[in-house]
Amino acid sequence: MDTDNIITKTSQKKEACAYNAHCPTRLVLNRIADKWTVLVMILLENEVKRFSQLRREIEGISQKMLTQTLRSLERDGLVTRKVYATVPPHVEYALTPLGHTLKDLLYAIKTWSETNIEAVLKAQKQYDELQG
Amino acid sequence: MDTDNIITKTSQKKEACAYNAHCPTRLVLNRIADKWTVLVMILLENEVKRFSQLRREIEGISQKMLTQTLRSLERDGLVTRKVYATVPPHVEYALTPLGHTLKDLLYAIKTWSETNIEAVLKAQKQYDELQG
Repeated sequence: MDTDNIITKTSQKKEACAYNAHCPTRLVLNRIADKWTVLVMILLENEVKRFSQLRREIEGISQKMLTQTLRSLERDGLVTRKVYATVPPHVEYALTPLGHTLKDLLYAIKTWSETNIEAVLKAQKQYDELQG
Repeated sequence: MDTDNIITKTSQKKEACAYNAHCPTRLVLNRIADKWTVLVMILLENEVKRFSQLRREIEGISQKMLTQTLRSLERDGLVTRKVYATVPPHVEYALTPLGHTLKDLLYAIKTWSETNIEAVLKAQKQYDELQG
């Protein structure tokens, strides 16, 4: 993967964005946090969302991974899952009060990743060249 | 594992501590961050350390996992590795300036985990009972 090319394209076109599957910000998120947790929880900060909305807004997440992430967040008391008895069933996810206490921290993780991605990619390139 | 028992013991004996292999704080760290990254980097905040010191201070980390974590941090430009030509070789790890910019965030992750571990464990127990 040509990461130099990706970051150049990214900075020309738009800010680094962890919601874009092709932005290398994800590499940093993967190091300092569970990236899916961060991405899901930030999306739920201001509004309740359905599974299909979350799936659409987080590029590159598989149905299985989103299901697993939401189940873990629900089990940890960070997200609630509410099922409406419609046909087909309507399922909504929201942050719990405990989940809301993580908000500033999740933003800080996302922001640090997006701010420092270029420095990290540069370091990785230098490291790989020295190893090579 | 009887987590109720562990958290009770922990709060009677000492504060929740992510450096203790038996403290359930690790369960939360595992969710919101790469726990080894957080633990290694906080230890390096104020001083340079040797591999053996890090290994001793982070209970439960294997030699392989510590090696992998340090290599990833070095590759990402967050940690430096300095080798002295002694017999046996003396190897020291330190935070880079980029690594230092993560300091407040890492503390916040560790503190959130330690502060909210009981709420998370309680939520997990309720969830598991409803599923069971």
